[in-house]
Amino acid sequence: MNAPGPAFPATPPDQVFDWLDTEAGKRSRVGLDHRPHHRRPGDDELDLAGEDYLGLARDKRVAGAAAAAALRWGAGASGSRLLGGSLELHAELEHELARFVGAQAAVVFPAGFTANLGAVTALSGAESAIVTDKHVQPSLVDGCRLSRADVAAVAHADAPAVGHALATRRKRRALVVTEAVFAVDGDAAPLSRLHEVCREHGAALLVDDGHGFGVLGDGGRGGVHDAGLSAQPDVVTTLSLSAALGAQGGAVLGPRRVVRHLVDVARGFGFDAALAPGSAAAALAALGVLKEEPHLAAKAVDAAQNLAHGLRDAGLTTSSPAGPIVSLPAPSAQAATAWADACAGHGVRVGCVRPPAVPDGVARLRLAARATLSESDVDRVVKVVAETAPRGARS
Amino acid sequence: MNAPGPAFPATPPDQVFDWLDTEAGKRSRVGLDHRPHHRRPGDDELDLAGEDYLGLARDKRVAGAAAAAALRWGAGASGSRLLGGSLELHAELEHELARFVGAQAAVVFPAGFTANLGAVTALSGAESAIVTDKHVQPSLVDGCRLSRADVAAVAHADAPAVGHALATRRKRRALVVTEAVFAVDGDAAPLSRLHEVCREHGAALLVDDGHGFGVLGDGGRGGVHDAGLSAQPDVVTTLSLSAALGAQGGAVLGPRRVVRHLVDVARGFGFDAALAPGSAAAALAALGVLKEEPHLAAKAVDAAQNLAHGLRDAGLTTSSPAGPIVSLPAPSAQAATAWADACAGHGVRVGCVRPPAVPDGVARLRLAARATLSESDVDRVVKVVAETAPRGARS
Repeated sequence: MNAPGPAFPATPPDQVFDWLDTEAGKRSRVGLDHRPHHRRPGDDELDLAGEDYLGLARDKRVAGAAAAAALRWGAGASGSRLLGGSLELHAELEHELARFVGAQAAVVFPAGFTANLGAVTALSGAESAIVTDKHVQPSLVDGCRLSRADVAAVAHADAPAVGHALATRRKRRALVVTEAVFAVDGDAAPLSRLHEVCREHGAALLVDDGHGFGVLGDGGRGGVHDAGLSAQPDVVTTLSLSAALGAQGGAVLGPRRVVRHLVDVARGFGFDAALAPGSAAAALAALGVLKEEPHLAAKAVDAAQNLAHGLRDAGLTTSSPAGPIVSLPAPSAQAATAWADACAGHGVRVGCVRPPAVPDGVARLRLAARATLSESDVDRVVKVVAETAPRGARS
Repeated sequence: MNAPGPAFPATPPDQVFDWLDTEAGKRSRVGLDHRPHHRRPGDDELDLAGEDYLGLARDKRVAGAAAAAALRWGAGASGSRLLGGSLELHAELEHELARFVGAQAAVVFPAGFTANLGAVTALSGAESAIVTDKHVQPSLVDGCRLSRADVAAVAHADAPAVGHALATRRKRRALVVTEAVFAVDGDAAPLSRLHEVCREHGAALLVDDGHGFGVLGDGGRGGVHDAGLSAQPDVVTTLSLSAALGAQGGAVLGPRRVVRHLVDVARGFGFDAALAPGSAAAALAALGVLKEEPHLAAKAVDAAQNLAHGLRDAGLTTSSPAGPIVSLPAPSAQAATAWADACAGHGVRVGCVRPPAVPDGVARLRLAARATLSESDVDRVVKVVAETAPRGARS
């Protein structure tokens, strides 16, 4: 038994959470509080905040499939995948996702966040080293923190830095973690070079392709497929089903033994309710639309590049979009919020990302392009973003 | 810079994941591998594996609401709650959930797993102590592990043990973590006594009411409401929307400042796609059904108690259900799997929980009762479970 710690005077019950107000005050003073805007069905704003890259969330074929599945299978799956909640619909979605990119197998999670948590934790552990790009998104960071592995976070998009970390690791087993298209700036990871470095050092490569799948490569097969890696025995891909596929949930694709392992041990798979039938059916229908209309993929990327060109022509600094995301640094978190609010006032919803969602402390506007944006939509977005830009955003 | 670690010989790419096969072999030898059964829409099996306690997942009002919402709002919410994915539908669900139990506010998460992760991590941290019942489910365990707090896991359902851990903690701020109805055995936590101990020591109380909400207390308002705690300033409740409400997702209910804090900092809220419109609408519709038909709640608990009585009369050892769950210990993981398979062979699907899903290493059958089970259904389940029981399951 431990020695007794210090005794604390009893806090009155209504003061137990006073520290939350203190924290809220601190966040508010530096512009890090959030007041989510609630959309209405009839909103006719241009939406570049969300991640419906192909415009499929409201496509009648996709929404119709979600509706039909709710009526056929039920609103919920009624349990975790290991406790009565596995449906043939999940198995079909897994089969089709794997087939689309040429992976051996896939497993679907109820949330994108837990797909990443599950993949990182299940494919590493106390006997592993993880080398991660320091710009990866929070679900991957939390996966690293939960993993018990030796974690090295290395310079952004830097294959030699990954190689150095692998060469100096202390555990034989190693997992390299990256995004294909980074969530905040929309820039690309050097996947081929990362894979070469992994090969050189006997490491596995885990790629979150959530912002590349559906928009990059042959017919939207994603960044991993585009790099020729989706069928490799040492590569694992994670996806969200909520971005290009317009649904909800996540998936992990890779060698059959990886998928079998995740089914057995990933806690966000086995110990959470299965993905709702409507969301699974929507993702499956969206995949069908993408196969029939492969040109949608390039349209989303073209729209992002047109946005970036237009914004730069207007004198603004932007990221270099490899996929559908363009971001613009703001002078401060408060300036970013005010900028986003001003855009909304002109009918253009843009994302506003602030610490800790950004890797470098710099708040940004984040614009997610869609395949459905017309040229005049792009012109309007450029005009609104440029006209509302704070002084410090101009290059 | 670190000193160079040992250099490892390069592993051939197709051997990088060999260790997964080794692990799979170990699991298989002790009966810890999983082969999920995929349900079909027309299945007429009696389902006691899932957690659709009120039988609402396939209720026409609930499934119909899911279908209508997908058509009206889209298949997906198109982004995280902080990036374009907040809908008035989410806000309405949050308002109604809070109102139903008398909490100040609620926040809805896309997954039950991330609601627990978010609540535990956001309400603790490196400056906090956590005292948790050692039987809590994996999402709460992982929340504790991610929290950076001093974590003490104490004896099951033991308020004095919690008091001792609080008295000897080294951090002023403290969070006590429990389930209202425990996921594996369906037994109840001593909520009133736990709250007294929290008060005595100035700690906050976090209760996962996922298996009590919808079935316990006045009209299914849950275990926390039943203990008179749902409006207390030092109590926070988490729920899954996938159990009694038949949908998907999770929620956290409590003081307004707790909810505001979670919106700002819970990573599985801000950095994951929002709950799909169909799932949010289904949960809202199910809550409406429960308000109109409050007797459903007690029917689920009655069914569980009838099951437990019947199974005991048949000579089997069962847990003492406080809510809808009854479990039966099995002699081994292999025996539990064989038992569950034998039940399925007779048209009765039961859950099979094995390490690490069980707190004590003992594999179990887990039966989740439903309000829709008739007396003859209960009799049939008892008969099938008893007739297929392995020798070691008899008391």
